[in-house]
Order: sequence, then structure tokens, then C-alpha cells
Amino acid sequence: MDVRAAVALQAGKPLSIETVQLDGPRQGEVLVEMKATGLCHTDAFTLSGADPEGIFPAILGHEGAGVVVDVGPGVSSLKKGDHVIPLYTPECRECEYCLNPKTNLCQAIRETQGKGLMPDGTSRFSLNGDPLFHYMGCSTFANYSVLPEIALAKIREDAPFDKVCYIGCGVTTGVGAVVNTAKVEPGSNVVVFGLGGIGLNVLQGARMVGADKIIGVDLNNDRKAIGEKFGMTHFVNPNEVEGDLVPYLVDLTGGGADYSFECIGNVNVMRQALECCHKGWGESVIIGVAGAGQEIATRPFQLVTGRSWRGTAFGGARGRTDVPRIVDWYMDGKINIDDLITHTMPLEDINKGFDLMHGGESIRGVVVY
Amino acid sequence: MDVRAAVALQAGKPLSIETVQLDGPRQGEVLVEMKATGLCHTDAFTLSGADPEGIFPAILGHEGAGVVVDVGPGVSSLKKGDHVIPLYTPECRECEYCLNPKTNLCQAIRETQGKGLMPDGTSRFSLNGDPLFHYMGCSTFANYSVLPEIALAKIREDAPFDKVCYIGCGVTTGVGAVVNTAKVEPGSNVVVFGLGGIGLNVLQGARMVGADKIIGVDLNNDRKAIGEKFGMTHFVNPNEVEGDLVPYLVDLTGGGADYSFECIGNVNVMRQALECCHKGWGESVIIGVAGAGQEIATRPFQLVTGRSWRGTAFGGARGRTDVPRIVDWYMDGKINIDDLITHTMPLEDINKGFDLMHGGESIRGVVVY
Repeated sequence: MDVRAAVALQAGKPLSIETVQLDGPRQGEVLVEMKATGLCHTDAFTLSGADPEGIFPAILGHEGAGVVVDVGPGVSSLKKGDHVIPLYTPECRECEYCLNPKTNLCQAIRETQGKGLMPDGTSRFSLNGDPLFHYMGCSTFANYSVLPEIALAKIREDAPFDKVCYIGCGVTTGVGAVVNTAKVEPGSNVVVFGLGGIGLNVLQGARMVGADKIIGVDLNNDRKAIGEKFGMTHFVNPNEVEGDLVPYLVDLTGGGADYSFECIGNVNVMRQALECCHKGWGESVIIGVAGAGQEIATRPFQLVTGRSWRGTAFGGARGRTDVPRIVDWYMDGKINIDDLITHTMPLEDINKGFDLMHGGESIRGVVVY
Repeated sequence: MDVRAAVALQAGKPLSIETVQLDGPRQGEVLVEMKATGLCHTDAFTLSGADPEGIFPAILGHEGAGVVVDVGPGVSSLKKGDHVIPLYTPECRECEYCLNPKTNLCQAIRETQGKGLMPDGTSRFSLNGDPLFHYMGCSTFANYSVLPEIALAKIREDAPFDKVCYIGCGVTTGVGAVVNTAKVEPGSNVVVFGLGGIGLNVLQGARMVGADKIIGVDLNNDRKAIGEKFGMTHFVNPNEVEGDLVPYLVDLTGGGADYSFECIGNVNVMRQALECCHKGWGESVIIGVAGAGQEIATRPFQLVTGRSWRGTAFGGARGRTDVPRIVDWYMDGKINIDDLITHTMPLEDINKGFDLMHGGESIRGVVVY
């Protein structure tokens, strides 16, 4: 079938709006009509060419929501008409990882997904007869996409696509880091570095679980107002702190953060995030993705005296299980998505959406098909 | 009173056997007749002058066992005749740290202990009228010492002093890292770097809790036999591995260690210990103490893909609570201490004991008073 897509023809070039061809779903696969997709920094990172694993030409996008329009043979958990959110971290419920309660990193289709292909090793997309690569197993920058059944979370039908698409990545990554990875307890003091689309969700995750001090750290003072809307109790602009940031934060938290979160991808900030943690028990969680080859460092004394250093991907969420719960939290008013989606646009304007992101003007831009 | 002590008069010099003066216990303090003390690398580290926090002249030693001979006013949990193990990490059961189940790092007397003084800011030891500093709050290289009540674990009376003194540091550090810090589950695969006095105790801790593969890594092939005695299932000498050590260990563990332990204090090995952990859930625990100013480093990707980096001090043990339990484990035959104590000696030969340690000839030397 013909579908409309924003195609990343090559690195460093704007996306190109094209009519491309999409094959129907094969064994274990599902055809989804995409209703909305968020624009995430990860898409921009890959498009820029900086992502060493980026493959072109490809259909990017991994933060979508839509409706099942067809299912291939063997698909049992989804049917036509189901509302779904694509999962770049699938949940097969059968691999060694899915069966280990300590991780969400299902490996069932990792190899082919990393190569931009469906699990059978082929692509469903093509342009003028030449194959186009899938992206993160999702390719939500097309108004139809084919995904493996295990990479789709079934969600309630009253949830608005143009909001809950954000649960496909940013919301779950931020809220999930608090709830699933760190397991922040009520009364904890939390420090969040970077108040972008992830950091704001960490803030509201911390608020939801009853944290006490929720400190946001950002160089941009414009993030103070929105941070407070999402539960931030204290705002710190490192440029306005006299002296070193770490002792300032240790003092502000009365001894150090119980939990800190790095939501930028800056290895120096990752170190600050660890070292501002409380001696004895403080835990720092890395969410941001650092540039290729960059390293984090600290003195081991920081760990020997009780701090721990961890990381999280997709907020530690098992998508088919946890994403529908987060949709419920949104529908119940426990988390706020509406105020994070600052811009919506048609697919034709997707490049303008990325411009808004790069200019720091949007929190989240969403393409509505 | 006059007591016999091995005094560290200055850095880099052998200990000097002296008759020194010891004041009686004050408020909250206890006079202990030391019956035995282990010689630990930490004592040697401080004696060498490399320890930036080393203070001289001092009475070193922190791995003792003895009998209460007098108590000061206000002491309620100990009485004359009680058998005790000194605790360089005390347990006051009242400070913010003791009341937090996530840590064992009681801070009640940390400041004065770090200055080589009793909690009231003075020393009980003197030599010819000049004060001598205490060490790690213990000073077990004297046949009598005064300690705060909160820094003594009361143990059963049938436990042999010349064996259970080792529980005052090395045994608890190693076994406790497995039991308290990592909380290794039965069936786990474990890698232990460095098979000295700590690493061997990590091995037997892992055996005690039912680990599957227990891999020991050491450059010294002589450690293979003793490692196996303590539960090691596989021995790896990095010099005999073709190619890189990390992928070799990942392969040997079938995907990576569930838990790894660094028992050397080498920051490069700390990195290997982290990176040999299993994606998704592997946890690396730093036990070894690195040189001043040295740093650990890795790519944050290691953490984002589910490994975590932690540290432990005194095996995460709360001394007054946990040390008596470990004494029970020894008396019940669950852990082996006898084969670790390779040499015993009178106080007069303590410098020979350190020579044996530096020559790699002893696992643990013990002074018996």
C-alpha cells in the first residue's frame, strides 16, 4: 500500500515527505495506522548523522500512537481496531531478559531491530522499489507502519492519540526512571539535571510518588515556571550558584540527594549527579545518552561510601505491561502530558517541528496525521 | 596502666614495641584486654605513609578480639568478662545513618575517630607523657585498649579469639559484601577479582549463599588451590587469557556476571569488574581501596544498559548486630576462617608478620597476646 512518510534519505539533511510503499504484516506482525507521533531528540540525533548506529535511508520516529488495521498470521494478542503504542523496547515475555525481573531490556528482536529490519530480516518499507530501513522497530514518521506484535502495547480507547503518543518514549522514560528503576520512596529528596522533555517527566514522577524536595537543575531560567508546574520545589541554575554546584546541592538537600537523575547526556553532569548524592545510600540514575566514546569518571571512594551509579533505558518499563498503566495514570490525572506538548503540526511541517526543538522553543512537538 | 603495644612512631618505619600508658575508660567507654589481632593491608597502608589520613605516632590495628575488663559510667550493654570484637565502623543505633536501613556507615563518632581520638576529643594512650593517637577507633596492636561501647560487638564466649579476630575486618568485609551489599541470590554467577584476604572471603560468602559459578581472578596461580577450598569453581589468571579479559569472563559466565567484586584497589580492575557484568542486571561492587586521587571510568552506556556500580565498606555490616551472627556462622562451620590464618606470632614479631604479608606468603597473620 502507499503511505505518507517523512523519509530520512541521508544524514544531516531535512526529512523528505514522500509517498512510500508498505508491505502488509507477515507472521507475528501488525499493521498500524499511526494517528500521532512525537518528535524526540533521539530522532534528531540519528538524523544529524552523529548516531554511529544510524542507517539511511530510513523512516525515523519512535513515539507514536495508533490503531491496528490488520494483523498477520499467528498474532493473538491484538486485533483490528485495537489502540496501540509502538514499543522500541519490546516485551516478548519469553526471553532470558523478560523472565528476569531486574531488567526490561527484552532481547527477542534486538539484532534485526538494530539493523533497521523486521525480525525476519527484511524491510516492509520501500521507495520506488528500493528498500527503506525501519527505525528503532517503530518508524512512526509514516501514517502506516508494520510492527512485531511484541512491540505494541494495547491501550484504552478513550485515550487521545496526540497526547499518549508521548508515553511511547519521553513520559515513560522519565516517570519510569523514578518508579521502576530508582523506586523512589515517599519523602525522598530528588535532584534532576536537565529540565527538557525527559527531566520534566522525572519531576512529575517524583511528585507522583511523594518525594519531598524535588530540585531541578537547568541552565535555562525559562524552565523554572514549567518545572514548578511539574512538581519541582527548588530550581537551581548552575551559572547562578556561587562556588561549586555539588556542595551547594548537598547543602540544599540536607546532606545529599537520595536520588539524582541525569537527563542531558553530559558526562560531566553525570559525575555531578553522582557526587551530589547522599553518603551511605544516594543513588544516581543516568538517563541521558552521551556522545560516542565519552566516559564517566569519579573517585571510587564515592561508591565505597555508599553511593551507587546506575542507568535506565525506557524508564525500566516493560512496555506491554507498563505503558497501559501509564496511560491510565494520565487519564486519571496523576500525570500531566498536555502541558508538555507545546506544538502540534501536520506531517508536512515535521522539519519545522525539529527546528522548534533545536531552538529550545518546544518541549514536545507532535505530528498529528 | 602500663600496656604493651606496637607503636607506629612515624610513617615508613617498622613498628616499635613499647610499654605505653593507657588511661581507664570514661563515660560510655570500655576497657578491653586484647587477646588477638589480625594484620591487615590497611594497617600496612597507613604505616607506609601512603594513607593521606594517617596520623603519627599512633597505635595501629583494627582487627581484634578480646575480653571486657572494665566499663566506664553509662555503659549498659557490656559488662566485665564479656567477649568482644572491636568495630572500626561502630553502630550507635541512633544516628541518621543507623536509622536508615540502606547503610551501615554510622556517623556517631566519625569526626573524632578520623582524628585518632576518643569521642571526647582526647586520647587514652600516651608514651612517656606524650599522647599517642588511636587508630580506626580500635588500636588493637596493644594488649589493652579503650573503645566506645558502640564500637564493640559482643560475641559468644566459646569462639576462639585467634580466629574470630579476623571477623573484625576481613571476613566481614568479604562475606558481608556478598550477603549485605550485593545480596547475591542462589544460582548467581559471581566473579571475584583478587584472591587475597578479602577476595577469599567473598568466594566463601558466594558459596554460602548458593551461587553457581564462582570465578576467581588473580595473577598468582598459587591462589587457585586455596580459592577452590573457599568455593571457587573457576580460576582465571589474566596473564594466561588470550585476548581481552572482559569478553573472556562474559563468555565464561554465559553472558556476564550477575555480581562482580573488586578486592584489590586497582581502578583499572574496577572497570573490568563492571564491564564483565551481565547486561540488564549485573552489579559490580567495589571493595578495594584505591590510591589517593585515582579515578574509575567507563562509558555510561555500560550503566544505561542495566549494569550498576556500587561500593561497600565493612561489608555493609552493622557491627554490633551482624558481627555476632558471622561468629555464629564460623562456629557452625558455614564459613572457614582457620585456613585463612596462615601465621600466628607474638606481638614482638609483628614486623615479621607484615613482611610475610608484603611477600605474599601469608593470607592472614595474627598476633596472639
